Amino acid sequence: MKFETLEALKGACLTLPTGDETAAIAASDRQDNLTKPRGSLGRLEELAIWLARWQKNPIPKLNQVDIHVFAGSHGVTARGVSAYPADVTAQMVANYQAGGAAINQLAQMAEASLHIIPLMIDTPTADFTQAPALSDAEFLDAVEVGYDAIDENSDLVCLGEMGIGNTTVAAALAHALLGGEAHDWTGLGTGVDDAGLARKIAVINEAVAFHRAKTNDTLALFQALGGRELAAMFGATLSCRQKSIPMVVDGFVASAAVLPLMMINPSGLDHAVAGHVSAENAHRKLLTHMKMPPLLDLNMRLGEGSGAALAVNILRGALVCHSGMATFAEAGVSTES
Amino acid sequence: MKFETLEALKGACLTLPTGDETAAIAASDRQDNLTKPRGSLGRLEELAIWLARWQKNPIPKLNQVDIHVFAGSHGVTARGVSAYPADVTAQMVANYQAGGAAINQLAQMAEASLHIIPLMIDTPTADFTQAPALSDAEFLDAVEVGYDAIDENSDLVCLGEMGIGNTTVAAALAHALLGGEAHDWTGLGTGVDDAGLARKIAVINEAVAFHRAKTNDTLALFQALGGRELAAMFGATLSCRQKSIPMVVDGFVASAAVLPLMMINPSGLDHAVAGHVSAENAHRKLLTHMKMPPLLDLNMRLGEGSGAALAVNILRGALVCHSGMATFAEAGVSTES
Repeated sequence: MKFETLEALKGACLTLPTGDETAAIAASDRQDNLTKPRGSLGRLEELAIWLARWQKNPIPKLNQVDIHVFAGSHGVTARGVSAYPADVTAQMVANYQAGGAAINQLAQMAEASLHIIPLMIDTPTADFTQAPALSDAEFLDAVEVGYDAIDENSDLVCLGEMGIGNTTVAAALAHALLGGEAHDWTGLGTGVDDAGLARKIAVINEAVAFHRAKTNDTLALFQALGGRELAAMFGATLSCRQKSIPMVVDGFVASAAVLPLMMINPSGLDHAVAGHVSAENAHRKLLTHMKMPPLLDLNMRLGEGSGAALAVNILRGALVCHSGMATFAEAGVSTES
Repeated sequence: MKFETLEALKGACLTLPTGDETAAIAASDRQDNLTKPRGSLGRLEELAIWLARWQKNPIPKLNQVDIHVFAGSHGVTARGVSAYPADVTAQMVANYQAGGAAINQLAQMAEASLHIIPLMIDTPTADFTQAPALSDAEFLDAVEVGYDAIDENSDLVCLGEMGIGNTTVAAALAHALLGGEAHDWTGLGTGVDDAGLARKIAVINEAVAFHRAKTNDTLALFQALGGRELAAMFGATLSCRQKSIPMVVDGFVASAAVLPLMMINPSGLDHAVAGHVSAENAHRKLLTHMKMPPLLDLNMRLGEGSGAALAVNILRGALVCHSGMATFAEAGVSTES
């Protein structure tokens, strides 16, 4: 096993490689000589430099883009926290495998490889209002699945998820880790009504109270309140960092899943960008807290990596400008007077 | 000539065709049956329905995407309102024609055809603080160039521009048409310093005061304060509407150029979306006024159609989901419980 204990996992999170500043500076110098006013491509310039830093290449590439969608099942769905029945998780996994979901279309458009990774979806986690969602071993196994999913040859990784009930899980985790009130972190998910929202908030309050003793232990809280697909996204994020692969995080659930890495190590998500801010109530608040301004803001709330996959096109835009534009000297264009 | 007089042009703006509600409703029904919670693709769903409405097709397509970049020269550049010398307009046109600019890369990535249309760039408009920028005939000629640029077979049109000095022109036009104070509408353009910004504001105040008598005549103000590339974008927009072609507007200058159509006819821009909100100071304010929420917000401020071209990828994302996803019935996925 990659990580034998939570302590070993935490240790790995504390000792992360940094990016390549030499490549980043070379990319920045290149941007300043392209035929445009300096800075006028805004975020596209920053993204090109960021890709250079983490790919360790002044002219980065996006030849191999991998989208990983992790799926998990949640015992808390028995408490009526979702608008959809729990077996939709398995049905949607089948839909991904058959090519019929939004992420299939968006992955193809982004020229990305789509990897669907169900994590024991026939075995839901425990109801986290009664017990830790996962045992140590179950949690570390899920982290490892995510960790091992990452190909070291990948130029970019996108992380998404599927799991009926997992906005409740994400909200509980964010609430436990960041404080505030449960309702601040709770949204409509796939579309619960007012009564469903009230049940979600009540369940989240129960769960966070039940696990209160773990408040100062980020990974223990993650294990108690998380789920397999969240643990796998966490493992994949750590793996990308160790392999120096830049990555795009999808929506609220994915953001909550990678939050623990930032809480353990403040620079732990420097290799990640937020693909979009979703319509799920608390996502904007969470990204603001994480200082991760989203690339897109299109009122999407589907999950399954859809916002991250769409954002790949923004990164491709950054890259084609960075690598394809002429310099002022090449084009014979005057610089500022 | 297409429009013999300003009155004839105004008349055309007042009698615009509407979209195809039958196609829009069919597209909306289709969205509600795709394997996702209703509404969960947010703006992507709205865009698919909007494309259907204006293409008059429940399953719209983006096979022929045309990006038109109109270039013009401005007499007001003699007043020191830009960070770049006026001859950069011609140099950048040459750069577009040689394939070295950002828009070349972004157009290719968007699988769009790029059309560069210089409008008498060796003949700047008059300094609009002293005289109307364009005569009636010059203004109507430029409108016609834009009008005639649109191919009736186009599935989508993007409008962009190049013209050293034209953020001053756009700011003057927005200020004259919408009121407020000159400094509210004035930004740094390609990157003027504080003194340059003060000169821009002073010049805009002079110009708007000089043409004050035209305050209640939208097209007369446009002719007096505009420029050839702005007039051409206006003509192209009218042409798209008459041909029922949906379109994407680029940044601050392009938005100011199409504003007169909305002022003459409140539904005049229903066939248009804002590709992005730029970093130019007043663009967000202008789009808010126009009730056109941007697709992208990436701190770009380059013009030349770059934001609109990048936004084509969002429209393509909307379309691949709309046309490629399975329905609940096809995929055997349960609907809401």
